[in-house]
Amino acid sequence: MLLGLDPGSRVTGYGVIEAANPIKPRYIECGVLKASEKLSLENRVYEIACGVREVIEEFRPQSVAMEDLFVQRNVRSALKLGQIRGALLFVVAEAALQVYSYSPATVKKTVTGRGRASKAQIQQMVKTLMGLKQTPALDASDALAVALCHARHAKRFVKGSANSKLEFK
Amino acid sequence: MLLGLDPGSRVTGYGVIEAANPIKPRYIECGVLKASEKLSLENRVYEIACGVREVIEEFRPQSVAMEDLFVQRNVRSALKLGQIRGALLFVVAEAALQVYSYSPATVKKTVTGRGRASKAQIQQMVKTLMGLKQTPALDASDALAVALCHARHAKRFVKGSANSKLEFK
Repeated sequence: MLLGLDPGSRVTGYGVIEAANPIKPRYIECGVLKASEKLSLENRVYEIACGVREVIEEFRPQSVAMEDLFVQRNVRSALKLGQIRGALLFVVAEAALQVYSYSPATVKKTVTGRGRASKAQIQQMVKTLMGLKQTPALDASDALAVALCHARHAKRFVKGSANSKLEFK
Repeated sequence: MLLGLDPGSRVTGYGVIEAANPIKPRYIECGVLKASEKLSLENRVYEIACGVREVIEEFRPQSVAMEDLFVQRNVRSALKLGQIRGALLFVVAEAALQVYSYSPATVKKTVTGRGRASKAQIQQMVKTLMGLKQTPALDASDALAVALCHARHAKRFVKGSANSKLEFK
């Protein structure tokens, strides 16, 4: 079981997949964790991290994948995002799980074939790849995309040769 | 007992003071938590947050004060700092403690009288205010400064009237 996370200070998406057969990963669950906008950032960070901890306790994934932070145009948003990501790193490590980070471009390219795919394109591709009848929320789709990206790379890692060596950026 | 924290992705400072008499706060302890530079950021975040958790368990402070993040020139550093801060927010909240955030300018102004004081000036002022014989490390001084800032403001808060109302920015 793999858990993908898409951290956000208001909404954090999560996606759980089974990738025992990495060529045909299986959808397990996805969803979004929302923190009330009335709360301070400090309290939102805690609330969302507690939600992720519950997801980990429920699904007991073997590993966790998360997007790396990149330098965004909006620095204030990036700082909030950094704080959420840091709290999630802590709860993942506290559960004795390894976290794997992928750049947003790697996730997009792995899932859609294009490093600059839109969120809507990722959503549609995730829906198709996972054989879902309903369209998952955007943040949940992003989380599933990170999990799928990790499943693909983890497969290469297991069977890896020198030139398929993973680069966790 | 108040705990001040100065989060950093390589070195995080902590300072513990007793402020039962807020006019004359008493020095208890200070120090720095270092994470090996060989570790990934993800692992450094975890290591430092675990160190802060140990400090909390040892000194059992009533509340915690931390500097707010501000938009730095170096955005990459700010993103790393954000992740450390997020993990610390989590361990503080997990210990059922309230965290109080102060802007760097408020901390400097409260401790030295000048909002643009240098780190060395803060260090000297903290040494004097706490009556220390030895000069604490810069990051430990910053952490003591945040704790002192909180002691000052918490005092105003307790005795507060409408126009001394605290603004936690």
